[in-house]
Amino acid sequence: MPSKARPASPPPFEPPARVLLGPGPSDVHPRVREAMAKPLVGHLDPVFVALMDETQELLRYVFQTENRLTLAISGTGSAGMETAVVNLIEPGDRMLVCVNGVFGGRMVDVAERAGADVVAIERPYGEAFDPDEIRQALKARPAKVVGIVQAETSTGVWQPLEEIAQIAHEHGALILADAVTALAGVPLEVDEWSIDAVYSGTQKCLSCPPGLAPVTFGPRALEALMARKTKVQSWYFDLTMIQRYWGSDRFYHHTAPISMNYALREALVLVAKEGLEARHARHALCGRALQAGLSALNLDLATQEGRRLPQLTCARIPDGIDDLAVRKRLLADWGIEIGGGLGPWKGKVWRVGLMGHGARQPNVTLFLSALGTCLRDLGLSIGVDQAVAAANDVFAQEAEPAVV
Amino acid sequence: MPSKARPASPPPFEPPARVLLGPGPSDVHPRVREAMAKPLVGHLDPVFVALMDETQELLRYVFQTENRLTLAISGTGSAGMETAVVNLIEPGDRMLVCVNGVFGGRMVDVAERAGADVVAIERPYGEAFDPDEIRQALKARPAKVVGIVQAETSTGVWQPLEEIAQIAHEHGALILADAVTALAGVPLEVDEWSIDAVYSGTQKCLSCPPGLAPVTFGPRALEALMARKTKVQSWYFDLTMIQRYWGSDRFYHHTAPISMNYALREALVLVAKEGLEARHARHALCGRALQAGLSALNLDLATQEGRRLPQLTCARIPDGIDDLAVRKRLLADWGIEIGGGLGPWKGKVWRVGLMGHGARQPNVTLFLSALGTCLRDLGLSIGVDQAVAAANDVFAQEAEPAVV
Repeated sequence: MPSKARPASPPPFEPPARVLLGPGPSDVHPRVREAMAKPLVGHLDPVFVALMDETQELLRYVFQTENRLTLAISGTGSAGMETAVVNLIEPGDRMLVCVNGVFGGRMVDVAERAGADVVAIERPYGEAFDPDEIRQALKARPAKVVGIVQAETSTGVWQPLEEIAQIAHEHGALILADAVTALAGVPLEVDEWSIDAVYSGTQKCLSCPPGLAPVTFGPRALEALMARKTKVQSWYFDLTMIQRYWGSDRFYHHTAPISMNYALREALVLVAKEGLEARHARHALCGRALQAGLSALNLDLATQEGRRLPQLTCARIPDGIDDLAVRKRLLADWGIEIGGGLGPWKGKVWRVGLMGHGARQPNVTLFLSALGTCLRDLGLSIGVDQAVAAANDVFAQEAEPAVV
Repeated sequence: MPSKARPASPPPFEPPARVLLGPGPSDVHPRVREAMAKPLVGHLDPVFVALMDETQELLRYVFQTENRLTLAISGTGSAGMETAVVNLIEPGDRMLVCVNGVFGGRMVDVAERAGADVVAIERPYGEAFDPDEIRQALKARPAKVVGIVQAETSTGVWQPLEEIAQIAHEHGALILADAVTALAGVPLEVDEWSIDAVYSGTQKCLSCPPGLAPVTFGPRALEALMARKTKVQSWYFDLTMIQRYWGSDRFYHHTAPISMNYALREALVLVAKEGLEARHARHALCGRALQAGLSALNLDLATQEGRRLPQLTCARIPDGIDDLAVRKRLLADWGIEIGGGLGPWKGKVWRVGLMGHGARQPNVTLFLSALGTCLRDLGLSIGVDQAVAAANDVFAQEAEPAVV
């Protein structure tokens, strides 16, 4: 007889209504949630195998690549980072990591644990790297891999990649890009830009619940993988084995998260239905409208001009305003979640995400109205209606964003 | 403009009706699927934090432990294995691994990648270890950790753990148990048996979709974790950081798979509602009925007598019968999925799971009737009705199993 007493059986969980406008997870399209709730099939069922094939083809579209090794790792975005790093790096390999936020910093930690000789170059929070910095660093100390973040979730920086990929290749290095917040939000041309390895997450601009990490490895990355002298240090993330399950072998590796794969497939179908170009335009428009509205509220944008992501905006918290008090009220009174700052930006910025299904005009105006009201109630002299009008003006100047 | 063409947008995925009677995933209770489809909240939302606390308390009940460090890793069962191993092992530590099937073998691989000095002792497929074998092995070569599988998913062996845990402790070793297929199917008394570390998966007797790995670390395992001289080699699976997110700090580590955690919480509520004792009894009864029915079909059970799991039965495939042909017909004509053999048992056994929500009388009789019909159609002289009757007799001798 069990020695530890049986706990009470609470009723089914009923989440409160939320509008997820933080740095992710983003609001999930109802079709994706419905897909996730379908009855299970086995992970080797022919029907599931066909779904995996379909998912791979859809992922190739979203990544804009023909890479055969394109699949979803059974973990969240950080599992994608670890997968990419531990498969490319062998102990002693040098890796140049570009750090201008939390996720570049995380890549350093992951690479060091994989035994890499890490060279980190840094930029302050909110700034992008100049290609020349990467050139200088590689000239000084050649590396096997250059790791860089396309969309820094902690700072809202949009890092151009094309020229840096070229520089990496000129110096005999592979380029590994973090596209967790980037994928399907801003253009990412894996093949055209010659990005060797990319990882992402499902819970940002794909608008799928967190739980899977899309990754793609191109020919040079695959070659490095196949030329390894040591086993990949992680069994769970070993792409040499995982690709045999996703490939024509269908060799059992681990039990795939069936329901999450249903969800991802559906989320990707929605991306294909909308079209990448339209989706990027929708994110760009919503981001522009939000940023216009925030400026009308007299909030400063914390990210370097010209390098601001549309899907994640960092606004400085006005002097004298309590970060947590505002976020708590947004959550309690409007059901709106936004993110606080991380690292040196803790308590200093708000991070507002308009990602995937969440990147819609009503969310922009709801948020500006809610935040404006909060700030006005805290004594700031602010024109809430003007801020909403500024955002709506941006929308009015463009064709209506597609409603998915 | 994207260079790779937009793929067609297929209609929503509609899985065919399946009865999942393989080695997992098992059929998921409708309440769990409904929970999974609820709208998302953020991973730092107070409502989600409360759900995590509730989940931990429910997991402690299912594991029968007071261990504070009891939580769900954001990956499948194999991620649980890797988590347990990489947190306990530092390069050079010796680990004794008991191998009598695929999952013991996998533990060797994972431990070697973590830099362990692995000593493997082996038993043929289908046999359990005798505690004395572990005593001899530890006498010969003391180890930091003994790894052993309570319910070998590849062979249906039910390994008693209590005495082995005692022996490990007498020799100064920690005991790490794989309870992927065991948890909530057969008794597991983590505290009473002094098991130091345990990992499991959600898709077996918890009847939750795959995607999370419950783990628990007791005081001795925690002490070993805190006494490490090196960082855990995996960032994603580093319990020193993960416990700060699940603990009162709520320190952000990675974005938890929200929907999967909804599902797990609901699956655990169902276990608590039924009660562990009743749930074990239900699995025991269904297993006994199935095994009686298989014997009536003249099939030999492949697992050592007295060490057979009720929730996973391995039956020898009769001479001259084509493994794949039978499994394909079961799937096509009845929608029933069972598992084939692995390793030396490939093509030689079928693995039939009656796990969680799947462990019900109608599934037992449906399966016996379907398999009997297949075999009779292939020319075996078999009494299908007698097999069903043999199973039903077992049920009739007991009180009706609870319907969850």
